[in-house]
Amino acid sequence: MRIINNPKKSTWESLSTRATINKQGLGETVQTIINDVKLNKDKAIKKYSQLLDNVSLSSFSVTKNEIEDAKNLVSEELKQAIRLANSNIEKFHSSQKEKETKIETTEGVTCWRKSVPIEKVGLYIPGGTAPLFSTILMLGIPAKLAGCEEIILCTPPNKNGKINPVILYTASLVGVTKIFKVGGAQAIAAMAYGTETIPNVYKILGPGNQFVTKAKELVQQDGIAIDMPAGPSEVLVIADETSKPAFVAADLLSQAEHGVDSQSILVTTSNTVAQNVVTELNKQLEDIPRKDIAIKAIENSFCLVLEDIESCFEFSNVYAPEHLIIASNLADSCIDKIKNVGSVFLGNYSCESAGDYASGTNHTLPTNGFSKSYSGVSLDSFVKKITFQKVTKEGIKSIGNAIELMAEAEGLQAHKNAVTLRLKEINNV
Amino acid sequence: MRIINNPKKSTWESLSTRATINKQGLGETVQTIINDVKLNKDKAIKKYSQLLDNVSLSSFSVTKNEIEDAKNLVSEELKQAIRLANSNIEKFHSSQKEKETKIETTEGVTCWRKSVPIEKVGLYIPGGTAPLFSTILMLGIPAKLAGCEEIILCTPPNKNGKINPVILYTASLVGVTKIFKVGGAQAIAAMAYGTETIPNVYKILGPGNQFVTKAKELVQQDGIAIDMPAGPSEVLVIADETSKPAFVAADLLSQAEHGVDSQSILVTTSNTVAQNVVTELNKQLEDIPRKDIAIKAIENSFCLVLEDIESCFEFSNVYAPEHLIIASNLADSCIDKIKNVGSVFLGNYSCESAGDYASGTNHTLPTNGFSKSYSGVSLDSFVKKITFQKVTKEGIKSIGNAIELMAEAEGLQAHKNAVTLRLKEINNV
Repeated sequence: MRIINNPKKSTWESLSTRATINKQGLGETVQTIINDVKLNKDKAIKKYSQLLDNVSLSSFSVTKNEIEDAKNLVSEELKQAIRLANSNIEKFHSSQKEKETKIETTEGVTCWRKSVPIEKVGLYIPGGTAPLFSTILMLGIPAKLAGCEEIILCTPPNKNGKINPVILYTASLVGVTKIFKVGGAQAIAAMAYGTETIPNVYKILGPGNQFVTKAKELVQQDGIAIDMPAGPSEVLVIADETSKPAFVAADLLSQAEHGVDSQSILVTTSNTVAQNVVTELNKQLEDIPRKDIAIKAIENSFCLVLEDIESCFEFSNVYAPEHLIIASNLADSCIDKIKNVGSVFLGNYSCESAGDYASGTNHTLPTNGFSKSYSGVSLDSFVKKITFQKVTKEGIKSIGNAIELMAEAEGLQAHKNAVTLRLKEINNV
Repeated sequence: MRIINNPKKSTWESLSTRATINKQGLGETVQTIINDVKLNKDKAIKKYSQLLDNVSLSSFSVTKNEIEDAKNLVSEELKQAIRLANSNIEKFHSSQKEKETKIETTEGVTCWRKSVPIEKVGLYIPGGTAPLFSTILMLGIPAKLAGCEEIILCTPPNKNGKINPVILYTASLVGVTKIFKVGGAQAIAAMAYGTETIPNVYKILGPGNQFVTKAKELVQQDGIAIDMPAGPSEVLVIADETSKPAFVAADLLSQAEHGVDSQSILVTTSNTVAQNVVTELNKQLEDIPRKDIAIKAIENSFCLVLEDIESCFEFSNVYAPEHLIIASNLADSCIDKIKNVGSVFLGNYSCESAGDYASGTNHTLPTNGFSKSYSGVSLDSFVKKITFQKVTKEGIKSIGNAIELMAEAEGLQAHKNAVTLRLKEINNV
């Protein structure tokens, strides 16, 4: 891992620039798939499942029997671990429920807002070598808590048409209503527009490869909401002399093993800390199974040694990381320095894996600098906050004249009339 | 206004379909402008201001003197009206501040979230015949309350290079930090990527014509957040025998005067109510200055007579209107029937104009059926909710094993290691 000593501030922006993958032609390919699914529905889904995933299925609905069977195939200790995580995530996301607060802005004018669930949501869970059941917890639990009526899940099956049992167990645990063995852009298109088998939904959430990500971007332009724009995962660790180099190295590596395009950034005020972490990192790297991936990710990563702790946070705010670990005994006193980040881990025992799985916070977070303007997934992601107002006769008497003046100044006479008529009626009684 | 009696449920979906405008070529045109602004910055802004808005300016920054002058050009009574609206909007949006709630999900594992302002936001206010200063209140007040450091505003000047004084007065009142005389897609591009004069921002909010809307869509794909997808404005009124036909007609017309593509929908259980409203509407229509626009909007609108009040709300939920007026003395008892809507107006004295200007709720709301998954603008639109977690030694001992098991099951050994190292250290002490 390269160490950069006190780089000029003018270079921070470019140090913070994430690598972009060449997406030439991706949009066209994905749009073709989307158009085909829109038109030919299930038939198109079958075609692309065969063509792209090499799977041929007569039905892609997961049956109740398959779910029941899956429950028996997951070890009791893993189920217990999942239930513990489930409980913590549920507790934290329950605390995000907003109480209705009625505000009388003027006598007779009362305003409030009410959280109402998005009726139908779709979750996407990628396939591949590992079953990402933790993401089902992160999306399914708040969806259920919010009160979404239909929570569907699409995930690609393996070549034998099977889905990993732990995926099915977790989906069932959190209350997913329907599961479909469909992956890729065709799954996103199916959830956006509906097919004979797969219902359309109003919002689609979950990670995926570049085809899935592009498909989400494209259906968003058609008014289907999505969780957030996506990019490779990343962590930034701020470490001082009170940090533990072995822990910091382990945290950097746990980010690096995600993918070759992941970034693990270390920012510290101490050259010794930097050296010690790099030594530890090289040592630990030897023993992890996903070494080849981690090495490449670490090549794209770096360690900054900066003058003072203020500069460390300043750089972090420019970089706007998905995860920020403050590996220091003084972590708690630094909270107000933080501006742009998805989720923060305070102190030497708050490792990123804790938040990835079981602390209770959500692990679906803004990457790629998007934490400057986006929040991670929360209970809010599954509700609309509808505003209400009740204006009484008294109320319209108080604010009516102001409305008339403003409407007239905006050239909207009919807006004014709606008030004038009411004021006349009240004054005539 | 055509009255449709008891249409079959199977037709509701198509009745709810909004008209689409032909956007052929729009994307290419707007992308060209964006690319040009990205590359040539201020020079490109000048070029398009000249070309599209017929304005030639040596500087498009609004000066302090221009703002001071503007304050004297707005009538005292209009300023008072704006200040009243300002006060109500501020009260309601202040109530949306979220308190930090720390949750101990497991002993030694504490999670919470903190609202942190988006540092830099850009507001767009369209030009045209009328100065839409009310939208400045709706966007500027929550931006300021949230604590955004930079709040810039772009709006096109008239042919003499001037901005309407009431726009400048309102922008100054709510605390906009910089105002620029730039409109159209070029303004959106400038705020997204920055020019020599105009700073880039992380989120862009505000209404606009199809060029502005398309530009917002395109920069969103580049990671710049936007408020929400846009479409023509609309109201749905549910009226029963306790409604007042003249009021309902006035509300339908105040929507219709917005634009030829606006929709004003009446849904009622009573044929008599329907007839009376239509009679009133035709009468009132004669007297409004924007009659030509309203007539066209009413042609695209309709009145449904349905069997019972349940059906009225069911249709409203399928239509998912921006504004819903419940013109009935029984409005309060219907709140739980509402699923999809931007903002709700309860009872005969809660006219839409009240919410448009001065009740306190926000008038930037999801149109085009997007209220199925989107909320209107609120304080939330100007903050990120960052999650925090603090895991103590005790905490990692409690949840560590679950994390190890889950990480291993997902094939992420380095994630597991980060916990294992910590557990070992704790147990060795």
